[in-house]
Amino acid sequence: MRLIPEFVLKDEEGKEFSWTSLLGKYSVVYFYPKANTPGCTMEGLDFSSLIDEFGGNVVGISPDTCNAIANFKSKKGLKVKLLADPEKEVAEKFGVVKDGKLIRSTFIVDPWGRIRREWIKVNVVGHAREVLEEYKRIIAEDYKLNESVVLRRAYRGISDKPIPKEILQKLVEAAHLAPSCMNKQPWRFIVANSKESLEKLHETLSGGNYWMKNAPAIIVVYTKDELDCQLSDNRNYALFDTGMAVGLLLVQATQMGLIAHPVAGYDPVKVKELFNIDGTVITLIAVGYWGNFDQLNEKHLQAEFSQRNRVPIDEVVKFL
Amino acid sequence: MRLIPEFVLKDEEGKEFSWTSLLGKYSVVYFYPKANTPGCTMEGLDFSSLIDEFGGNVVGISPDTCNAIANFKSKKGLKVKLLADPEKEVAEKFGVVKDGKLIRSTFIVDPWGRIRREWIKVNVVGHAREVLEEYKRIIAEDYKLNESVVLRRAYRGISDKPIPKEILQKLVEAAHLAPSCMNKQPWRFIVANSKESLEKLHETLSGGNYWMKNAPAIIVVYTKDELDCQLSDNRNYALFDTGMAVGLLLVQATQMGLIAHPVAGYDPVKVKELFNIDGTVITLIAVGYWGNFDQLNEKHLQAEFSQRNRVPIDEVVKFL
Repeated sequence: MRLIPEFVLKDEEGKEFSWTSLLGKYSVVYFYPKANTPGCTMEGLDFSSLIDEFGGNVVGISPDTCNAIANFKSKKGLKVKLLADPEKEVAEKFGVVKDGKLIRSTFIVDPWGRIRREWIKVNVVGHAREVLEEYKRIIAEDYKLNESVVLRRAYRGISDKPIPKEILQKLVEAAHLAPSCMNKQPWRFIVANSKESLEKLHETLSGGNYWMKNAPAIIVVYTKDELDCQLSDNRNYALFDTGMAVGLLLVQATQMGLIAHPVAGYDPVKVKELFNIDGTVITLIAVGYWGNFDQLNEKHLQAEFSQRNRVPIDEVVKFL
Repeated sequence: MRLIPEFVLKDEEGKEFSWTSLLGKYSVVYFYPKANTPGCTMEGLDFSSLIDEFGGNVVGISPDTCNAIANFKSKKGLKVKLLADPEKEVAEKFGVVKDGKLIRSTFIVDPWGRIRREWIKVNVVGHAREVLEEYKRIIAEDYKLNESVVLRRAYRGISDKPIPKEILQKLVEAAHLAPSCMNKQPWRFIVANSKESLEKLHETLSGGNYWMKNAPAIIVVYTKDELDCQLSDNRNYALFDTGMAVGLLLVQATQMGLIAHPVAGYDPVKVKELFNIDGTVITLIAVGYWGNFDQLNEKHLQAEFSQRNRVPIDEVVKFL
């Protein structure tokens, strides 16, 4: 993840333009060597002719003065925003100055300020069109359903291949980035990845969760109401916020190619005794790699490759 | 997302090899035209020399017989798994047959069976090394913290730019893919995106949530215990499962470049009356594009660009 540098420059009207103006939208930032020269004129005109398709969000930066860019813009009828960077300070921050000279370059910046694509040493001919195609491709990709959300399923065909501790740690790191009421962070995790802890947990599982015995790790998730906001009208946030954290954990696991399957079929009192837990053990999450199907009973094997089962979305949402 | 086709072929020992063997790991599947010819031998030897770095997961498929690949493998001392596809049926499914001829091609397949990279019409020289670099790059990328999880923050600098309904719908679709106890799907959403609904909701907000009045959409999230499992030891799953769903919604919003900021500062009784809600309104989520900072008070403006605040991770997790 490479973010744009922070900067403030003056535009063609002498007004300040901050890097924060690039946030919340998909934009193009391009550096060109000199106003009113043939290549830079062609590039400015090409971007201008596509300005609507870029949603108006194209910014050209050059080592010219405000006067020079104002003149350039009006003389050529450019529709892009121009910024003056006479000392090449911002160009330096973007890394497009070499031996004191500005290298013609283009960046696609996303709503979080991430540089999603860069072209260093640009050939102007056909460039704006190429940038537009990539710009549209990135937006289309972002607007799809998140693949980790889609790929996650309550798979049971878990293999006993061990998972390094760093990877399990990363699952909890993702969970720990969840929001919570007043930032109370009420979620608590015990990652059982030793033979001893796992064997003890196996004794708490319901019969239907036999497949979990293969898992190289089981994450015990608990919390209690006192760890989070307790507000009017029965709003206890501990379970809800812990749920958001587990949601993020599931996404992280799926991204790393891991099954993470939360279950409710266990003896909660036994689990609490086992680890001296003060609170509600809301779920155990079986974590492991997919791909061991021999162990599954017929019903579970079918479920593994069956269609997903959801009530029609209109039953859970209304637009008002 | 392009998934590998389902297939079963025989290997060099005449044993069946199913596509499901590729799940749960990162692997390479390559197609080569003919065993024992110079190019195919070089390719097989090159992949074999790197087999440990591929975790053993390289599969070569050709239109040869089982006998031919058995002979090829032992004679050349190959360490890759070879499969016989004499009728080119699997090659067809992968799309690497043209005018009846097999085109030398390579695929990197991830643990979910997604094709993550493909090379069609391969030049053998240096190819295995190039595949290995890409293979390592993909794994390293997947093993990072999920960027949508990291980029998500409780931002308040929300702009009033409208959000198309399809995009709001996608947020709920992501949420609706969450797991839940016995697949009960207890989450319920009201997406307020009309001027009228938004204005009514504004009247329920606490003073500190003034910034939400800019949001082009507010998602009301509610549920009730009866919609989900109610199990022993105080385990009511409605809020937890709804939390997981909202976790996925936040990831989807962040991927689409949207702020999605859940809050607890509103009058729950008024919200319920407003929309005739039977249940607990656990959160309102302000949804919008980032980038309007003028409206924020000093404290909120600072929070917008400050460091993230989390208790040390060791306080929320133990490895046992």
